[in-house]
Amino acid sequence: MENKKEELTPEELKEKGYRVFDLIESYFQKLESFPVLPKVKPGDIKNNLPASPPESGEDFETILKDVEDIIIPGITHWNHPHFHAYFNSTSSSAGIFAELLSATFNSNGMLWKTSPALTELEEVTLNWFKNLLDLPENFWGIIYDTASVSSMHAIAAARERTGLEIRTKGMAGRAKLPKLILYTSEQAHSSIDKGAITLGIGSENVRKIPVDNKYRMLPSFLKKAIQKDKDAGLLPFCVVATVGTTSTTSIDSIAKIAEITGEEGLWLHVDAAYAGPAAILPELKFIFNGIEMADSVVINPHKWFFLPVDISILYIKHPQILKQAFSLTAEYLKTNEDSDVINYMDYGIQLGRRFRALKLWFVMRYFGKKGLINILRNHIAWAKEFESLILSNKEMETMAPVNFGTVTFRFIPSFLKTDEEINAFNERLLNEVNTEGKIFISHTKLNGKFTLRFVVGGIRMEKKHVVEAWDILQYHFNLLKKNF
Amino acid sequence: MENKKEELTPEELKEKGYRVFDLIESYFQKLESFPVLPKVKPGDIKNNLPASPPESGEDFETILKDVEDIIIPGITHWNHPHFHAYFNSTSSSAGIFAELLSATFNSNGMLWKTSPALTELEEVTLNWFKNLLDLPENFWGIIYDTASVSSMHAIAAARERTGLEIRTKGMAGRAKLPKLILYTSEQAHSSIDKGAITLGIGSENVRKIPVDNKYRMLPSFLKKAIQKDKDAGLLPFCVVATVGTTSTTSIDSIAKIAEITGEEGLWLHVDAAYAGPAAILPELKFIFNGIEMADSVVINPHKWFFLPVDISILYIKHPQILKQAFSLTAEYLKTNEDSDVINYMDYGIQLGRRFRALKLWFVMRYFGKKGLINILRNHIAWAKEFESLILSNKEMETMAPVNFGTVTFRFIPSFLKTDEEINAFNERLLNEVNTEGKIFISHTKLNGKFTLRFVVGGIRMEKKHVVEAWDILQYHFNLLKKNF
Repeated sequence: MENKKEELTPEELKEKGYRVFDLIESYFQKLESFPVLPKVKPGDIKNNLPASPPESGEDFETILKDVEDIIIPGITHWNHPHFHAYFNSTSSSAGIFAELLSATFNSNGMLWKTSPALTELEEVTLNWFKNLLDLPENFWGIIYDTASVSSMHAIAAARERTGLEIRTKGMAGRAKLPKLILYTSEQAHSSIDKGAITLGIGSENVRKIPVDNKYRMLPSFLKKAIQKDKDAGLLPFCVVATVGTTSTTSIDSIAKIAEITGEEGLWLHVDAAYAGPAAILPELKFIFNGIEMADSVVINPHKWFFLPVDISILYIKHPQILKQAFSLTAEYLKTNEDSDVINYMDYGIQLGRRFRALKLWFVMRYFGKKGLINILRNHIAWAKEFESLILSNKEMETMAPVNFGTVTFRFIPSFLKTDEEINAFNERLLNEVNTEGKIFISHTKLNGKFTLRFVVGGIRMEKKHVVEAWDILQYHFNLLKKNF
Repeated sequence: MENKKEELTPEELKEKGYRVFDLIESYFQKLESFPVLPKVKPGDIKNNLPASPPESGEDFETILKDVEDIIIPGITHWNHPHFHAYFNSTSSSAGIFAELLSATFNSNGMLWKTSPALTELEEVTLNWFKNLLDLPENFWGIIYDTASVSSMHAIAAARERTGLEIRTKGMAGRAKLPKLILYTSEQAHSSIDKGAITLGIGSENVRKIPVDNKYRMLPSFLKKAIQKDKDAGLLPFCVVATVGTTSTTSIDSIAKIAEITGEEGLWLHVDAAYAGPAAILPELKFIFNGIEMADSVVINPHKWFFLPVDISILYIKHPQILKQAFSLTAEYLKTNEDSDVINYMDYGIQLGRRFRALKLWFVMRYFGKKGLINILRNHIAWAKEFESLILSNKEMETMAPVNFGTVTFRFIPSFLKTDEEINAFNERLLNEVNTEGKIFISHTKLNGKFTLRFVVGGIRMEKKHVVEAWDILQYHFNLLKKNF
């Protein structure tokens, strides 16, 4: 055993750290020259890597060279200003620095004691963020990793509030326990189904309420569905509304839905994972109308607030119910301060907890409220300009209102008559555009119609990128018209 | 809106990045002069921070100054070489650089397409790690955030394998569905209970099997408990064994437990979150004897493999069952490559997925197999030397075998007679040692005895730190003997 590779000294760490930032500078300098989607086939990266780790340690230079030669050509460039797919998550410099410091300190905030600054900065920044969005004062916040996990915890709290002792007795083998029923719209995110599946609710017990022509949940149908289930002896317990659905960014009416959940005594959870940050804009405060009647809301700053993945915030009106559902303190985790502080481990399944509040703090401070408003307002303006271009083009149509930075549309070349042909045309166009790699867009299906999605939301995105993207789409459209 | 604070240019990002590494160098230079546990009271950090975010953006210098003045004095220093509490998780430089790059690329590996290099590096590095530990070839790996989440997924797969259609029909309101019963030892981690609670199994349906005098699950009691439940018409479905329990790092016999789960057709999950990496040492391969008969195992490289939190690996023999339990592809996530690649989102509740494999790759390459063996072997040797010192001291006793880098012990001053007095003495000693801040140790309770835990496991820990810690403990012991 001759190899005694040791941890770097602080000087060496700094020196190599500079070297990593040289690589990062070069990455961002070259970023726009990369295809957004990498030109690799399944297996290309695996085949470039050895089957076993090295026996002896390697130099950082060697490792960094492989990052440049193997990893960078193989990643999809989420930070690319022409990433217009899904919901474009981007990491600002402020967020990157904070993640670097978070890895340096390596704080684990399972208890207040295991990192007081982590716990208290989480409290403070979640209050800041709540104030920016004008969320109700009595909403208490906690950071999880992803919206799926946040929503699962909200549904778990709703399950706990039924008072049916599910935490202790479980759900199986209980003759008198009725089926628990959850309601959400046809346009809700798949994470709601996954939450229900995980929690033992069952996918069949998730009712998908129809939507109107703007893809918003129809409260009248919700009301009927609840009544029908009650009549059948089932137990409605939770409704999930969405502010900014994934396909079209439609906005369910929290106020109208809350009227029903209020009457029925159901938990109302709001999934605002994508669109939540837009409530920082005075002109978009209305998206949270009625939120004071909701029980919980999830917002992901890693989506449209320029924080690196992952960070998801759950605000909840009844933290004590969440605690009741999950708190479980082993002897080795008891501390003298337990009664005076928040131990975030009490409020969820995860014990380990990264220092995620640091990046939220960095980003809110670096840009400031005005800076963030400015960025989001621009994104929405550019998306609406993109929409105007579509509306003035006879061979295109929009598929849903543009509420935020996301545009849904399709091409309708005059020589195609059936939806089937039009679908095939748009699907082929999508593939040709993305394969070229200059821009990356994604798709969805709306009432059987293959729909293109164009998202404006990256921190490095400028108006010129939206204009360029339009031209690229037109170029491919004209090309495909000839070849279809 | 005059403030138009913009994202940094690549040059500015590099320049400020250098500045952050200056701060990091200074942090590590001063680290040993900081108290491991910060000298703060609840509220101290909150009270130092404004109630709202700034209206206009701030300079990085201002933010970094607050990191130095407010955050660093308020964190518990997990990377401090005298952090001897819990399981000491530390971040090596290699891991820190990888996290920096991960935040830079901001890859989200929900689909292969959304970052091929992320997905394929995850496959490759999990094979490397599997080879280092000599885990069975047919174990398939996936990275989650924490062991709690990994174990929850394992138990969910076990629930799915019952064939009771719980994914679709749920667990409530089904007259013929028997109670599902899970077995683990009295010494198992609380995450197993939390997993069962989350999944709707219920905490009452988690059987805590007694342990022997080395805190290992007693297979004969497991066998009897299963039989008893079957006789009562209940449905045993899963057993969780632990390799390296949290209190004492005891090692359940996988082979003996697997004999029973094999006969009974139960899922066997192994929680090796802490101790798993020790199987890199030839002399400790035995801890996984019988693992080929298990169905899944969780190992957390962020505990004792020098990767920053968070990274937890689940190896599972039946990935198709995990997929069956969780796969749910919305239209907007369908890709052309779905049949040729792994889309990790299909195997769990979380959709978003950070580029965690990068740090596993960096650390295995930087240290190499020999380097990692050397570090872990030293930790264990120093822990055993610490144990020898205890064994040769009449006023101390060890509480469990030292299997890895963790020592459990207590002081037994000759003038104290009852366990009650001895408990009070050790608890006070713990508080005095930790309040001083030179070292940080933690505690547990074993058969009613207040037990101190001393962990050797940090990347910056040297033999001298263990010797120093011994002296510090003796100093406080002698002081407390006079004042008790």
